[in-house]
Amino acid sequence: MKKIKLFLLLFLLHLSIIGMAQEKKTFTLNDLLPGGNTYRTSTPQTIFTTWWGEICVETDVEQCATIDPRSGKRKTLFTLDQLNEWLDSGDKPTVRSCLYTEFPYADKPLAVISVASRRYMVDFKEGKMLWKQEIPSNSSHVDWCPASKSVAYNKDNNLYVMDADGHETAITNDGSNDIVYGQSVHRDEFGIYKGTFWSPDGNRLAFYRMDQSMVPDYPQVDITTRIATTYSCKYPMAGEAMHKVTVGIFCPATKETVWLKAGDPTDRYFTNISWSPDSKKVYMIEVNREQNEARLMRYDALTGELEACLYTERHPKYVEPLHPIQFLPWDGQKFIYQSQRDGYNHLYLFDLSKAGKDGWQHIEGRDGEWQENVKVTQLTSGQWVVRDMAGFDVKNKSVIITANTLSPIQANIFSVKVSNGKRNLIGNDEGVHYVRLSSKGSYLTDTYSSPSVARSINILKASDGRGINLITADDPWKDYDVPEITCGSIKAADGVTDLYYRMVKPVGFDPSKKYPTIVYVYGGPHAHNVEASRNYLSRGWEIYMAQKGYLLFILDNRGSELRGADFENVTFRHLGIEEMKDQMEGVKFLHSLPYVDKDRMGVHGWSFGGFMTINLMLTYPDVFKVGVAGGPVVDWKYYEVMYGERYMDRPQDNPEGYQGSSLLPKVGNLKGKLQIINGYNDPVCVPQHTLSFLRACIDAGKQVDYFTYPGDGHNMFGQDQVHLHERITQYFEDYLK
Amino acid sequence: MKKIKLFLLLFLLHLSIIGMAQEKKTFTLNDLLPGGNTYRTSTPQTIFTTWWGEICVETDVEQCATIDPRSGKRKTLFTLDQLNEWLDSGDKPTVRSCLYTEFPYADKPLAVISVASRRYMVDFKEGKMLWKQEIPSNSSHVDWCPASKSVAYNKDNNLYVMDADGHETAITNDGSNDIVYGQSVHRDEFGIYKGTFWSPDGNRLAFYRMDQSMVPDYPQVDITTRIATTYSCKYPMAGEAMHKVTVGIFCPATKETVWLKAGDPTDRYFTNISWSPDSKKVYMIEVNREQNEARLMRYDALTGELEACLYTERHPKYVEPLHPIQFLPWDGQKFIYQSQRDGYNHLYLFDLSKAGKDGWQHIEGRDGEWQENVKVTQLTSGQWVVRDMAGFDVKNKSVIITANTLSPIQANIFSVKVSNGKRNLIGNDEGVHYVRLSSKGSYLTDTYSSPSVARSINILKASDGRGINLITADDPWKDYDVPEITCGSIKAADGVTDLYYRMVKPVGFDPSKKYPTIVYVYGGPHAHNVEASRNYLSRGWEIYMAQKGYLLFILDNRGSELRGADFENVTFRHLGIEEMKDQMEGVKFLHSLPYVDKDRMGVHGWSFGGFMTINLMLTYPDVFKVGVAGGPVVDWKYYEVMYGERYMDRPQDNPEGYQGSSLLPKVGNLKGKLQIINGYNDPVCVPQHTLSFLRACIDAGKQVDYFTYPGDGHNMFGQDQVHLHERITQYFEDYLK
Repeated sequence: MKKIKLFLLLFLLHLSIIGMAQEKKTFTLNDLLPGGNTYRTSTPQTIFTTWWGEICVETDVEQCATIDPRSGKRKTLFTLDQLNEWLDSGDKPTVRSCLYTEFPYADKPLAVISVASRRYMVDFKEGKMLWKQEIPSNSSHVDWCPASKSVAYNKDNNLYVMDADGHETAITNDGSNDIVYGQSVHRDEFGIYKGTFWSPDGNRLAFYRMDQSMVPDYPQVDITTRIATTYSCKYPMAGEAMHKVTVGIFCPATKETVWLKAGDPTDRYFTNISWSPDSKKVYMIEVNREQNEARLMRYDALTGELEACLYTERHPKYVEPLHPIQFLPWDGQKFIYQSQRDGYNHLYLFDLSKAGKDGWQHIEGRDGEWQENVKVTQLTSGQWVVRDMAGFDVKNKSVIITANTLSPIQANIFSVKVSNGKRNLIGNDEGVHYVRLSSKGSYLTDTYSSPSVARSINILKASDGRGINLITADDPWKDYDVPEITCGSIKAADGVTDLYYRMVKPVGFDPSKKYPTIVYVYGGPHAHNVEASRNYLSRGWEIYMAQKGYLLFILDNRGSELRGADFENVTFRHLGIEEMKDQMEGVKFLHSLPYVDKDRMGVHGWSFGGFMTINLMLTYPDVFKVGVAGGPVVDWKYYEVMYGERYMDRPQDNPEGYQGSSLLPKVGNLKGKLQIINGYNDPVCVPQHTLSFLRACIDAGKQVDYFTYPGDGHNMFGQDQVHLHERITQYFEDYLK
Repeated sequence: MKKIKLFLLLFLLHLSIIGMAQEKKTFTLNDLLPGGNTYRTSTPQTIFTTWWGEICVETDVEQCATIDPRSGKRKTLFTLDQLNEWLDSGDKPTVRSCLYTEFPYADKPLAVISVASRRYMVDFKEGKMLWKQEIPSNSSHVDWCPASKSVAYNKDNNLYVMDADGHETAITNDGSNDIVYGQSVHRDEFGIYKGTFWSPDGNRLAFYRMDQSMVPDYPQVDITTRIATTYSCKYPMAGEAMHKVTVGIFCPATKETVWLKAGDPTDRYFTNISWSPDSKKVYMIEVNREQNEARLMRYDALTGELEACLYTERHPKYVEPLHPIQFLPWDGQKFIYQSQRDGYNHLYLFDLSKAGKDGWQHIEGRDGEWQENVKVTQLTSGQWVVRDMAGFDVKNKSVIITANTLSPIQANIFSVKVSNGKRNLIGNDEGVHYVRLSSKGSYLTDTYSSPSVARSINILKASDGRGINLITADDPWKDYDVPEITCGSIKAADGVTDLYYRMVKPVGFDPSKKYPTIVYVYGGPHAHNVEASRNYLSRGWEIYMAQKGYLLFILDNRGSELRGADFENVTFRHLGIEEMKDQMEGVKFLHSLPYVDKDRMGVHGWSFGGFMTINLMLTYPDVFKVGVAGGPVVDWKYYEVMYGERYMDRPQDNPEGYQGSSLLPKVGNLKGKLQIINGYNDPVCVPQHTLSFLRACIDAGKQVDYFTYPGDGHNMFGQDQVHLHERITQYFEDYLK
């Protein structure tokens, strides 16, 4: 008897030792979220590189070093200490990191470093500072031109230029909340992200002017002043008056501005501004308010005269030009235009020297038509999309792109021969790749991750894809108790289309158990949630929830990006409807899994995903027990003109669509626990959405929960993000577990 | 064996029959809350009466009838149908109810009925309409004068008068959001509730002018417009610039306005405006911004000249005149002034014809001093307060008051002989009584309730208190399963003062069980929660919670009203501190009760009570597990000047007090579950309070719950009130049960 007891004791001891040996760590929200103060714990290691002509430079905090593209050998260009010495820093270092050093001149040993409102240029061969420039400290929207060393910037909504010698010129003087210069316009839609455009020779500056005097302010409240105050937040709502944009060309030499003679700017979008290589012409894509016609126009940059319409594209739903044209570096008469006119985003070669086809063209059986006023040749084609056009390999006369040719959820690198469209894979055939090309495109850095590679950074030759590996990161999760993350596809509600999902199983998954399951959803255009990168793009919060015993499911429904025009625009004029049908196919799939607890299904999403979350809660009240919706759209009439009308038209033109897509008429269906969270100062999905929903719930006698982050906008950052996810987690813990 | 089974069955059947027989109904929130659509279910029956000279008239929907004060016999004056006939209504009745008919002329058979912006006068003896008056439909702040049949009203912040013949005169024309005429000023503090004051003869109109151009708007947002908008909401915060008030006297005959020459209105309060019986003088009490000095002034109404300062009162903490002077109807040289200069609110007889004492007076051992420039005689005295002065019994030369002479939590009626202060009880010696006097005060209606009487309405003779009972309401709860409601007292934290509490025991109370317990709290000045009226003033929500198995406890701490100056002003310059000490004495008492579950203590309050709730949660985080705070003050610097500075002085003069009373520095203590709820458009405790608290919680990494009612102000009404209490209930159900 005693012997048995001893044996049992030893056995238990043994088990406990095994347990200790195998014990893995658990992530906190601070480890897993970008805003967390220990976020580095959970992210793969990386290095920073930039290009100096055809030479790759590794920039780290302490130094800049060239990398030999064959051996990978580093050779120090200069150290942080040297840099500070050249800048005559004395005891207090002027520069604290070399990370963001630039090498703008391919053939000169010059580095440019920006610190706050100062910019320094050093000659690292001579070991001295060559030049510096200081702009006013209240400047914003800074755009520096390496060609002329001039810099454009914004002060109080006026546009200024400072030349290389430090002379400042005010280009405009009537800037205000109503009239805004040199900033991004059209709410960053149509690929617009800035408002100044230097000509290649640096002698002219194209810039946006936006008159938004006719656009009402959404009343945003600042509670940090002694007595709360409002601040200006122009917000053009769908169907209402929108701003008017014009484009000026400033010549620093003459100090004169000409305006592009584009006609009445009312209800028009001026997008994708670019320059001809000779700095004499400005190209612009012009879209009508209905967003069903895009015209590529050319203007004389010296006079502002309209010279020609080169191309027109129409679609009965919408067109959406997102990319400026890019001239071939070796032929000033040819450029690349991106269009999804055949159903997928592809490259088209335009030849200014040759005439186009007569009349309107179209593809049999497809919507949309176009008119080519110059010769157009399709360079890429197929049921996949060009995700990014990185630039040109000048020597081999090819374009370098990333595309999902190999799989809808991958992004691989290809060189595309301009002469014949021949496509060559560069880098491996897995994962999701990002490219940065050298000046002439002979080399590129290929940064990628895949489900099996946390991060890999390589220097490759564009001609043959050969090269070296700079870093292959260890799995930063190896000491942690992490969930299994899988990826797969199901059929969309149309029965035909493949939809990709990610599933994050609870840590310590036991297939004989039933787990509370949360659908995380976005579902809107311009985004995807599932791809073949690290962890299939899983978000930190999913890991956190898996640690807590939840199963997470994420599905990219029709309406999301990278799958072609038909996939996306099936939602036209009734946002939410098709998207939900697809998500319910995901739910059907989940219900077929024995370890998914049908009675404990939750849903969570932010922004468009907040809209989807509430919509799913109201449309399928018996399916979802708990939902957390962040910064949601509640009624598209409260969303802005540019994005909103593209998908929904104007409320006055599509009243049934708006009514059918609105969450307000559905509040009476609310059954489960729903919490809505927003940034109190959200300038994107303005609080009127959420507050109108609360009011409708109150009027319908429905209880809904709410939280707001004063001072935060559409998203939460830093510790607010951690607080937010603690909150979201707690809600599921309280009501779904 | 079988027999026993049968017996058991019969016994169980018997029990169930008893159960059915005894089964009582349960109240819903709709039954119990004033906003509920079945609220009448839970409230005692009532009748409406008014006075026609010395004759009591019962007004109901269908008719007006006199009541014989000896027999109680009703005699119809006229019916609704007759009324409509006299008004020539035709098919569509002009008047839909006789409930609010007035009989302004003691000696004439005339009734006045107001319907929307129209006023009708009928001769019910002759059976015809005598006169009518119609003011613009966008009028507000309407003040009709029976003497002249003129009416004063407001349009777009300007003041107008229409005479009996229908001629309209604009008294002012610069009214705006900044300049406001003829409305209540000083945020309804100092007993102010209106902005126009007709002279007794109806030939002059005193009115307020408020210049609030220097007061910032608190940004209030209206989400019901197409795009949310802000609207003007002037809010003078403690320590900041306050509005300037002046008083005009308009003479309709000359159409001229004179202004009271009161001097620079900066940082001064002009309160309690009243007229001399001969309509020639205007009296006003003037308070300095520090609120430690009140001066009773007399002005010549014809010239605006200041004639005399009649009385000055000072107190190192604060003075708070709440009542206009009232002249004796039989002596135009004497009036009643209310003051708590001896520590309790009492009546003082002022005699204009006799000189006062020289120099400053005070009571030995008490704070405060006063100067009497005319002869002053104290009429009432004792450690109790005059709650209300109803008027005069002219024949017997006495004042009719209600006072808590018999018990601090009662209000009984007394006549006080003006000649000698002799006090006689009118009506019974229980409960809480309200009085409405006849014109000359020979009769009064005495409406009261007590813990044993749901509602009793009586007509009594003022001379001897004899009279008849008009109605004694049944207990409307007799068919319902209701909790036991008890009342008692404990000692305050000072060890001396009696504090009164109400306890609502769970329905089906079993003293051997332990119950979750909720402290409902207000705690601020100008209010009390416990009194010897029906159910000790229990609120419907308490009954609802008792039905759900909670014990409710409500204690009036020091700082609350009706208990004298020292009781109230112990909180001076540090609101919240003493109040919480007293509430914790209540908790100590609760902890001594075996059926109170110490581990399930919650707290709930609104406004000042919201402030108390959060404060208690943060100051005693181990005592209270769950709190729901409504429309709270979070930091007194965000509260308004008039109320805020009375108790806290200005922030710049009392920084430690403000810091010590602020909830913001304490957020780190938060441990339990706390939900804050406010009206999104709260103009009283502006949202900056709650939003600042949320921000502080987020910054401290603390989770707090929040809900807001878009469109609602400081309190919720109607179905919003029901929704709100469902919400509050759910929170305790989720986390305290």
